[in-house]
Amino acid sequence: MPLGEFELIERFFGRPAEARRAARGDVPLGIGDDAAVLAMPAGRHLVAALDTLVEGRHFVRGSPPESIAHRALAVNLSDLAAMGAEPAWFLLSLTLPEADEAFLVRFARGLFDLAERHGVALVGGDTTAGPLAVAVQALGTIEPATAMTRSGGRPGDLVYVSGTPGDAAGGLKLVLDSAAGEGLDEAHRQWLSGRFHFPTPRVALGLALRGIASACVDVSDGLVADAARMARFSGCGLAIDADRVPLSPALVAMAGAADARRIALTGGEDCELCFAVPPARAGALEVLADNVKCQITCIGELTGDGGVALSGHGAPLDIDARGYDHFARA
Amino acid sequence: MPLGEFELIERFFGRPAEARRAARGDVPLGIGDDAAVLAMPAGRHLVAALDTLVEGRHFVRGSPPESIAHRALAVNLSDLAAMGAEPAWFLLSLTLPEADEAFLVRFARGLFDLAERHGVALVGGDTTAGPLAVAVQALGTIEPATAMTRSGGRPGDLVYVSGTPGDAAGGLKLVLDSAAGEGLDEAHRQWLSGRFHFPTPRVALGLALRGIASACVDVSDGLVADAARMARFSGCGLAIDADRVPLSPALVAMAGAADARRIALTGGEDCELCFAVPPARAGALEVLADNVKCQITCIGELTGDGGVALSGHGAPLDIDARGYDHFARA
Repeated sequence: MPLGEFELIERFFGRPAEARRAARGDVPLGIGDDAAVLAMPAGRHLVAALDTLVEGRHFVRGSPPESIAHRALAVNLSDLAAMGAEPAWFLLSLTLPEADEAFLVRFARGLFDLAERHGVALVGGDTTAGPLAVAVQALGTIEPATAMTRSGGRPGDLVYVSGTPGDAAGGLKLVLDSAAGEGLDEAHRQWLSGRFHFPTPRVALGLALRGIASACVDVSDGLVADAARMARFSGCGLAIDADRVPLSPALVAMAGAADARRIALTGGEDCELCFAVPPARAGALEVLADNVKCQITCIGELTGDGGVALSGHGAPLDIDARGYDHFARA
Repeated sequence: MPLGEFELIERFFGRPAEARRAARGDVPLGIGDDAAVLAMPAGRHLVAALDTLVEGRHFVRGSPPESIAHRALAVNLSDLAAMGAEPAWFLLSLTLPEADEAFLVRFARGLFDLAERHGVALVGGDTTAGPLAVAVQALGTIEPATAMTRSGGRPGDLVYVSGTPGDAAGGLKLVLDSAAGEGLDEAHRQWLSGRFHFPTPRVALGLALRGIASACVDVSDGLVADAARMARFSGCGLAIDADRVPLSPALVAMAGAADARRIALTGGEDCELCFAVPPARAGALEVLADNVKCQITCIGELTGDGGVALSGHGAPLDIDARGYDHFARA
C-alpha cells in the first residue's frame, strides 16, 4: 500500500530517540522540523559534500536497494575522507517513483548499516516522487588549516593509492554483462560485486593522513584521471608506473592481467583515496597502514614537468586518462 | 556544443576569486575540491536543509531556467528562515539531460541573483546527466537555543502568516492553464506569475522573529496544512478565521473571492512563514513588520482542544487541509 510522505519519513528514516541520542549527542534538532540544528565542536571548521546518484547513470534499474543507499552515502563519506575530515551528520533527499515499502525497508537498512559503522547521524532531508535518484549531503568537521586539498603536492612527492582500484568497475562489469563472470570462482565474484555494491569509504585512512599527505583526492572517476587532477591542481606533472598499481586476484581472474591493469587505471566508482606524500614522511605511512587496516601502495610520483607519464614494464603506456565525465563530448 | 562536466562547473558556477572573497570571508575552501571547508562563527550552531526540485513534480517542462534555480535555492532559504537561522552557504547538485549552454547561463543567473541578494555563497556540489532535477543544500548558523521549532507553541498563542498566501498556487494555475488568465490585467498576471516563479524567502522576517515567535513553520504544502502541522507538533489545536487570511488583489481578480480564499488556504509552493506568538509579545510584531518590509497578518490562534477549526463569515468551513503530499494515497 502506498504511504504518505510524512508517514514514509517517520516510518523508515525516523529512529527511536534513544538510538539517536546514543548515536550522537550533538544534534539539538534532527529530522522532523524545517531544518536540522547541529552543535559544532568549538574551534573546528565545517566540511560539506553533496553528491547525487541517478538511476541509469550510477546504478542500473533493479539494483539492490541496500547498495543504492550504501553507495549514495559512501561516495559522500569518501569525499569527506579525502579532505581528512571527521564525518558527523548527513541529509538525504530521496526521489522515487512510488513509496514502495519493500524497497524502503531495504534502502533504510543499507543506509543505517553504513551510517552506524561510521557514527554519522541522519538529521534531515526530503522525499519526492520522480525518477529514482538519491542525493546525500555529508557534513563533517576538521581542525582549521589541516584539510588535505588537491593542490598541496610538490614535485618529488610520492603518489599512493589505497586498496585495489578497479574492483568496483570489475563488479559493475559483472552486473552489466553476465558473460563477464563465466567460469569465475564464487569468491572472486563476491569480492568484485561487493566492491561495486558496497565500497568502503576510507574514513580512518583520511583522518590518519592529515599531517602526512601533502595532497589527496577521492578516486571516483578513474585512478589516472583523479591522480592527474591532483597533480594539475598542485601545479605538477605525474609519473605512474602501471606495474606497481595493485590488482586484486579477483580482478585478474575475471579480466586477465592486461585488462585488469587497464581497468585498475581507468575504471570508476571506487571509493579509494589517491594521495601525495613528501619522501621524508614516507616512513610514517608504514605505521599508519597497519593502524587503519588498509592496503596502501606507492604507484609513482609528482614531477616538475606538467605532463602525465604512464609506464608499464618500463615502457610508456597509452591509456585514455580523462576518466569518467558525465557530459563528455561524443 | 556539449560541455564536459568539469568545464561546466568551472564555467557556469565558478566565480572570480575577488567576487568570492567579497561575498564571504568564511570559505577557506570552496568549489573545486572533494568537499568545501567552511569557517563556522564561534559559539554558533549549524542549521542545515536539503530539498530537491524535480521536473514534472515541482516545475513543468520548459520552465524558465532562472525560475528553476531561484525556486530550488528559495525553498531551502525558506527552511532556514523558518528556524530563524542566518543563511551562509549552499551546495548545488544539478542533474540535467544534457549540458545545454543556453539553459545553464540562465540557470546560473537565477541562482546567483538570489544568492547575492541574501549574501550566501555557492561552495560545492556536483553535476550529473539524467532527468532534470535540482537538489540544493543550504547551510546557516544560529545562536544556540534560539532556533524556532514547530513545537514551541502554546494554547492562546496568536497565529500569523506572512505575505499573501496562495499567490504561488495562482501563478502555477496560470502556467498550467492558459484559460485561467483570460481577461486578467497584465499587472495581476505578472504579480501571480512572479510569486510562483520567484518567491521571496522570508529570511529577514525569520531572523527578526527570534525571541518573539514561540513556533514557526515554512508554508510550502498549503497554509492550513502547515499551520495544522505546527499546532500538532506543539500539542495544540488550531482555529483559523478564513476571513482574516490576506488575499492579494491579483488572486481575487483571477479566481474570484471565494476561490481565492480556498487557494490561499490550501495552495502550495509559497515561501511564506506561519508562526505563533504569545499575546504578550504581539506588540513587538508591529514594529518588526515595518522593519522587515513584509506584510504580517493574524489569522487565528492555537487552541487547547487538539482539533483544526476553520471558520469564515463566522461559520465553520469544510476544506481539505491535508496539504500537498508527494506520496498521498490515491
